[in-house]
Amino acid sequence: MKAVRNWQEGFRWDETELLAYKSDAAHFENITRQLLFNAPHGLSTQLRYFEISPGGFSTLEKHAHPHAVVVLRGTGRVLINSEIHDLAPFDLVTVAPWAWHQFRAEDTSTFGFLCLVNIQRDQPVLPSEDDLAKLRRNSLTSSFIKL
Amino acid sequence: MKAVRNWQEGFRWDETELLAYKSDAAHFENITRQLLFNAPHGLSTQLRYFEISPGGFSTLEKHAHPHAVVVLRGTGRVLINSEIHDLAPFDLVTVAPWAWHQFRAEDTSTFGFLCLVNIQRDQPVLPSEDDLAKLRRNSLTSSFIKL
Repeated sequence: MKAVRNWQEGFRWDETELLAYKSDAAHFENITRQLLFNAPHGLSTQLRYFEISPGGFSTLEKHAHPHAVVVLRGTGRVLINSEIHDLAPFDLVTVAPWAWHQFRAEDTSTFGFLCLVNIQRDQPVLPSEDDLAKLRRNSLTSSFIKL
Repeated sequence: MKAVRNWQEGFRWDETELLAYKSDAAHFENITRQLLFNAPHGLSTQLRYFEISPGGFSTLEKHAHPHAVVVLRGTGRVLINSEIHDLAPFDLVTVAPWAWHQFRAEDTSTFGFLCLVNIQRDQPVLPSEDDLAKLRRNSLTSSFIKL
């Protein structure tokens, strides 16, 4: 890996592959992944860049490991448990352990963000019917969620 | 800490203190630090934002721990051992263990970047007179270095 990898128009980077968001095709739409730093030289985290096309969304999920997020491009929103927040470039998001979370791009914006995770981490859990019923009791949350 | 901390004009963030780069006043100029993520909820790294005013520079140093850097603002240059690279927003830099490195802002640009480090890391080492003599054998490197 080169010491410096330049950014390219369209939010691509030298020597950095454009990846599928996840290996299954369910529970998300219009989202790509680039692994910017794969724990180089003993760094204990990965830094990924996710990009959601207009109207797309990440999986609604929760897990024990935290996320630390820095928005880089466009506008979107995030659901964290019962809260929904507007996001714009350079805003910071902390997703605490076991918080339900889902990112959405605005309908007219490509929305890109950095997301930091420990290399050693657990698998995400998807909501059960019970979990969804609870999340849907709140009308704001209910209208936000996409599956 | 709030789940979302908004970015503010001038590259400040909600609830995020503007800190001195280091506690001593030597070997660097015109640089500030903000600790954006201090290993929240068991994350094993810190994410810092450093900002160098026009003409300023970070300490010329090396250490065992790696750096992963994402440029956010302005233009600058980095020395990594005998190489000097131009940097612009969203460029990625990997500083390998024990590589000499120094960041500089362009004379007309405020230069800001994210820098990722493990929480558990060693202290930086400054160059000896011998190290400086070696770094100065290369005319490009020699004219780059600031102390």
